[in-house]
Amino acid sequence: MAGRGSLLVAQSGGATAVINASLAGVVRAAQESGRFATIIGARHGVDGILSESFVDLGRQPAAVIDGLLHTPSAALGTTRRRLTEETAAQAVATLARYDVHAVAYIGGNDSADTALRLAAAARDVGYDLRVVSVPKTIDNDLPGTDHCPGYGSIARFIALAARDAALDTAATAALYPVKLIEVMGRNAGWVAAAAALGQTDEGDGPHLIFFPERPPRDLYALLHEIRAAYDRHGQVVAVVPETLKDASGRPLSGEDLSWTDPFGHRYYPGPGPALTRAIEEHLGLRARFDKPGTIARMFAACVSTVDRQEAYEVGVAAVRLLLAGDSQVMVTIERLSDAPYAATTGAIPLTRVANQERHLPDAFIGLDGRSVTDAFRTYALPLIDGPLPPYARLLDLPLSRA
Amino acid sequence: MAGRGSLLVAQSGGATAVINASLAGVVRAAQESGRFATIIGARHGVDGILSESFVDLGRQPAAVIDGLLHTPSAALGTTRRRLTEETAAQAVATLARYDVHAVAYIGGNDSADTALRLAAAARDVGYDLRVVSVPKTIDNDLPGTDHCPGYGSIARFIALAARDAALDTAATAALYPVKLIEVMGRNAGWVAAAAALGQTDEGDGPHLIFFPERPPRDLYALLHEIRAAYDRHGQVVAVVPETLKDASGRPLSGEDLSWTDPFGHRYYPGPGPALTRAIEEHLGLRARFDKPGTIARMFAACVSTVDRQEAYEVGVAAVRLLLAGDSQVMVTIERLSDAPYAATTGAIPLTRVANQERHLPDAFIGLDGRSVTDAFRTYALPLIDGPLPPYARLLDLPLSRA
Repeated sequence: MAGRGSLLVAQSGGATAVINASLAGVVRAAQESGRFATIIGARHGVDGILSESFVDLGRQPAAVIDGLLHTPSAALGTTRRRLTEETAAQAVATLARYDVHAVAYIGGNDSADTALRLAAAARDVGYDLRVVSVPKTIDNDLPGTDHCPGYGSIARFIALAARDAALDTAATAALYPVKLIEVMGRNAGWVAAAAALGQTDEGDGPHLIFFPERPPRDLYALLHEIRAAYDRHGQVVAVVPETLKDASGRPLSGEDLSWTDPFGHRYYPGPGPALTRAIEEHLGLRARFDKPGTIARMFAACVSTVDRQEAYEVGVAAVRLLLAGDSQVMVTIERLSDAPYAATTGAIPLTRVANQERHLPDAFIGLDGRSVTDAFRTYALPLIDGPLPPYARLLDLPLSRA
Repeated sequence: MAGRGSLLVAQSGGATAVINASLAGVVRAAQESGRFATIIGARHGVDGILSESFVDLGRQPAAVIDGLLHTPSAALGTTRRRLTEETAAQAVATLARYDVHAVAYIGGNDSADTALRLAAAARDVGYDLRVVSVPKTIDNDLPGTDHCPGYGSIARFIALAARDAALDTAATAALYPVKLIEVMGRNAGWVAAAAALGQTDEGDGPHLIFFPERPPRDLYALLHEIRAAYDRHGQVVAVVPETLKDASGRPLSGEDLSWTDPFGHRYYPGPGPALTRAIEEHLGLRARFDKPGTIARMFAACVSTVDRQEAYEVGVAAVRLLLAGDSQVMVTIERLSDAPYAATTGAIPLTRVANQERHLPDAFIGLDGRSVTDAFRTYALPLIDGPLPPYARLLDLPLSRA
């Protein structure tokens, strides 16, 4: 088997419900190619390379690899460590000792950076190393790809959850008129926007979606919007990203609730608690908040089947690119048509990906800044196996008095 | 059609993912009996009776009633209003005007109280009124029944969510070692306990489940337990009920975070934010919290099919009891066997239900006070369509060095 070199695969960044499907795609494609001496899994991304914490993926039972398609989180473990020039050189030395000439690195923006640094360090010492990045992020904020594996599944969860939570508020609006749903999404509104995907009728919640791309001027402007929506609908379900800031960049989670974390970073809790309190105190409206948090990112029982399949396919595509001699590229998803939905994989140079963020385009945000457009629905519904199955509504049939 | 009298049905208390299945059961059974002139739905529980806000359920298209089986929240709307002697008399007068002699009231502890007050007020004026309570509560804290419709579905969601969220922490423990999952459950630990139902192996999270029945002595005792679990597992996933109090009855959400709500009640936010901060500040461990909130109570895409079926059947049983002349009883679920799971419906006098709470029995709580017993698993797994489908785990296969 010697002479063919080994493939190393690793996972990085926040885990998702389908990141293991990409791992399965890499392993299956590598096995079927017969071109790798060993298929090495590094535990916890670059940490595993640096500490030589490896697992043999090529010898796993077939049932384990199949099971990865339905198992959330990162089976290899993940990391958020970024390589320095020094650690990149150390990592390449380790890869050389294990005869690894091909790396598939599954992750988000940070992993594109890692892949580039590995490639640069290999070039510096004249070592033949191909590195391909396999996209993964629920934030959907990687440039150069129609969307990112992981997004479809959190978007499906948030669409389902927001629809159900809004129905809850509709049934009890007299007592609890305001509900906030705090969602992930870093600096982009992709996840928040998904909360609109279960709406079918005028007036259906969520009534306000706050996008990082359209920050409220300040807390009082936000409260004013809540009040206006309440006056209009008699209830308000509002979606607030966990990193929501006001127009001047101040976190809306409330300065007084922030603290310094064990790593010395200022930590702002999500805006749910502070906004809930502000709505009660300033508007006199009972408010509560839901914060599905990591559950939304990981919930495996309701993944988008499109997302799972694509997550698998980008893993397969990464191996094909490596075998073709490609390097320093990220696999992309290229949409061929909306209806019926069809897509294929492509590739983009990593230099165009690393440390970039793709925000929600203007065309996807309603003119009011708090809703989505039909263009967004057309974009997102295929990614969540949508439209969602419809719910029943009682017809407003009056009694024929006896 | 006159002379047969009408049936009125209403929904009360917190909505659930399956409360509309009970409504469907009532309507279907009433239609099939052919014994009611009209099937009246009251909007928002007793509020709808008092304001004569009614909808004709007997004339709804069959597809609407069928659709209720898959539609969460209370289709009729709900309320938390309790009847006084005066409003009960007023409600009975209204029922008499609509020739209603049978009421099926779907709800939790409060609705049992409402049903009793309606029956008493009818008796006072010599009006023939039968009232049957249809159990509904995710808190599972109604006495006299093996379990409550709504519990199986939130328990299934929490079991799935806790398993996935724990896998997330396992993949990133080096960076985020502590996760809290804040759950509902009022004063009983039934919902919290469900977080253990996805565990299969020793060491699987959640590592600590705090039950209202086993309060920590104080905040510092709780922090000590978190620290000890971290030392043992290198990570901690802990489940904390939203109403968690210490042994002296003080809410663990932090006095300084509480406020007075618009109704003049002191409101304590759930303990998630305060405990997260305390863990970071006192233990130096990065912590985050998930709070699925109303999403867990309402999430319709993953309901327990056993729960949905039983929610329907208690609705059917209520109509049968009313037709047999029963009154002032609550429908119960009586378990016949655990494996295979089998249950039937029964009835219990409302006087034994109203304003009572059933806590998690000692036999269901592990000796450490932070885990569940096999007896609980035997009890709860059939209610969540369990066991959950297994996940894949990579085998720890070392590389055969080239």
